[in-house]
Amino acid sequence: MSFERENIQRMSGYVSGEQPESPDTIKLNTNENPYPASAGIREILADFDPADLRRYPPATSAKFRQLAAELNGLSSENVIATRGGDELLRLAITTFVDPHEKIGVTYPTYSLYPILAQIQDCPLVEVQLDEHWQLPQDFAAQMNASDVRLTLLVNPHAPSGQLLRREQIEAVAGELNSILLLDEAYIDFVDHDYPTADLVTQYDNIIILRTLSKGYSLAGLRFGYGLGASSLIEPMLTKTRDSYNLDLISQLIAEVALIDQATASESWRLVIEERNRLARALHDLGFNCPDSQANFLLAKVPDNQSAEALYTKLKERHILVRYFNSPRLDDKLRISIGSRIENDRLINALKEIL
Amino acid sequence: MSFERENIQRMSGYVSGEQPESPDTIKLNTNENPYPASAGIREILADFDPADLRRYPPATSAKFRQLAAELNGLSSENVIATRGGDELLRLAITTFVDPHEKIGVTYPTYSLYPILAQIQDCPLVEVQLDEHWQLPQDFAAQMNASDVRLTLLVNPHAPSGQLLRREQIEAVAGELNSILLLDEAYIDFVDHDYPTADLVTQYDNIIILRTLSKGYSLAGLRFGYGLGASSLIEPMLTKTRDSYNLDLISQLIAEVALIDQATASESWRLVIEERNRLARALHDLGFNCPDSQANFLLAKVPDNQSAEALYTKLKERHILVRYFNSPRLDDKLRISIGSRIENDRLINALKEIL
Repeated sequence: MSFERENIQRMSGYVSGEQPESPDTIKLNTNENPYPASAGIREILADFDPADLRRYPPATSAKFRQLAAELNGLSSENVIATRGGDELLRLAITTFVDPHEKIGVTYPTYSLYPILAQIQDCPLVEVQLDEHWQLPQDFAAQMNASDVRLTLLVNPHAPSGQLLRREQIEAVAGELNSILLLDEAYIDFVDHDYPTADLVTQYDNIIILRTLSKGYSLAGLRFGYGLGASSLIEPMLTKTRDSYNLDLISQLIAEVALIDQATASESWRLVIEERNRLARALHDLGFNCPDSQANFLLAKVPDNQSAEALYTKLKERHILVRYFNSPRLDDKLRISIGSRIENDRLINALKEIL
Repeated sequence: MSFERENIQRMSGYVSGEQPESPDTIKLNTNENPYPASAGIREILADFDPADLRRYPPATSAKFRQLAAELNGLSSENVIATRGGDELLRLAITTFVDPHEKIGVTYPTYSLYPILAQIQDCPLVEVQLDEHWQLPQDFAAQMNASDVRLTLLVNPHAPSGQLLRREQIEAVAGELNSILLLDEAYIDFVDHDYPTADLVTQYDNIIILRTLSKGYSLAGLRFGYGLGASSLIEPMLTKTRDSYNLDLISQLIAEVALIDQATASESWRLVIEERNRLARALHDLGFNCPDSQANFLLAKVPDNQSAEALYTKLKERHILVRYFNSPRLDDKLRISIGSRIENDRLINALKEIL
């Protein structure tokens, strides 16, 4: 007999991008940042006294939250620090969505969302994006009509890289009669000024997700944060969050990385530069890439090619990209922006294969 | 209006022991280990290359799980690594207990359990321990009669420090028709040989919780693990766990700490020695402390004293102990075992006060 709950028995877990052991592999499959994190991290680690680990860490990451609040023109009460963006997604569901209530998403979207909904035993309401990966006009109306309690929108969109206009976000939030969680995991790679944090002071139903995984080159750290009205942040911070969700060393590293905006923003500049260069090179090879404002490109393979076969041939050459065997995506590859050398190796490999 | 679920609105969050800013404060309130963690941690941090944080960490902490399996005479498939014991508790509930199903506990017990039950909207079935903090004979029968799906037993017991005999555990597990989670947060401080890991090969309904917070002097690290039949571990490991629950640096530190059994077990020896000394000194001051096999004592204050007033007077002297304002505990103080110097300062302060 199994002790698992029925909804857990029915589901499969999240399948993340491959993480090869070999350092020779070029990893363009999980949207990691190829450029270095803040040099201050090395100092933090060198100066750290392991005896400080004897005690429990600061329970609510107060110092990090203060820094994130200042960076975003908000107050600490508008910020929760989380173990990557994943924890914030889970907390939002745990706090605001009863089992059997509905969670709204677009199709396609970040493939973790359906898994998190299944864990809470929540049906998913999926609304198709149009052919240009844009929201339909009646998106919020559809969510309201289906009695959705929490809508998850990744912006810039994954896996397409499309960016919503701010007016679109405001229109959706204003019309929704439930919570809109904006997953801004890739927001740092937008190539123009694009403020959104102030939205949480204007809409009491918006939660914004941020992460240090991509924009701060710290996927291995597992650190992110959420912004929102204190009425939304407070129950996650004081009730549903694991009591000590973030260890001491992670908090210290995250503080240093967030303060060092110069290092992070230089990596954003380089990623944007390489994104433009790689998009042009892929275009010249017959791929079709819609404009992306994220650190990846969703590239439709040339008409006479199979995306899955290309994925396999690249992997044989120790280059990993992401292939999704799902409707509307199975003729495309999602390619993370690597360093200049990595991108060149990808382009050369594609030239050999095609 | 509030967007919170009704069960979340109704509840209050977990209140952890105070964490004072001042390094002068003697902290005997949160069961931290006063002795140092493995010296290998400093090397790990000195050698660590921050560039390794660019990538996602090993998703399932495979190396740590292998080490924990070897230490406990089990296989990796019997081990899940978690962010402290707290994450394992949450995962067990998420995976095995539907909302509105019941969770069984003793009274008193670890004060986090009722909070976790409320988050999942699960009623609690509380069975009173007898006057010696022992399980009643019909404990498992009561749990079965109440249709409990998950029973949480902390052993050695918190806050009394009482240890169950192994035969008692086997009798409970054998009789229960649901899962028994043994929270062994304090198991390292038992003063005699007391193996339990093999129970998970004999009972397919036992999950054992371990943590590095106490026995390995790493409360600030947030690292623990669970042991169980693979049928219990696998759904938590592959379905309900946050995809990358443990960051890279934590994994490296936990591996080093677990390997260094010599350092950890020396701290256990010292804690046991101080526990015996402190218990005698408290006895001489008129306190009544039942034998404890944990790194704390539950001390009934002398008859003419108020536990709450003593707690306050100690705090004025910058000594923190834990006072629980709850039935059967409000005439007692829970005192963590500190270093020899810290314990002496506590004893001297009590002599002044009494």
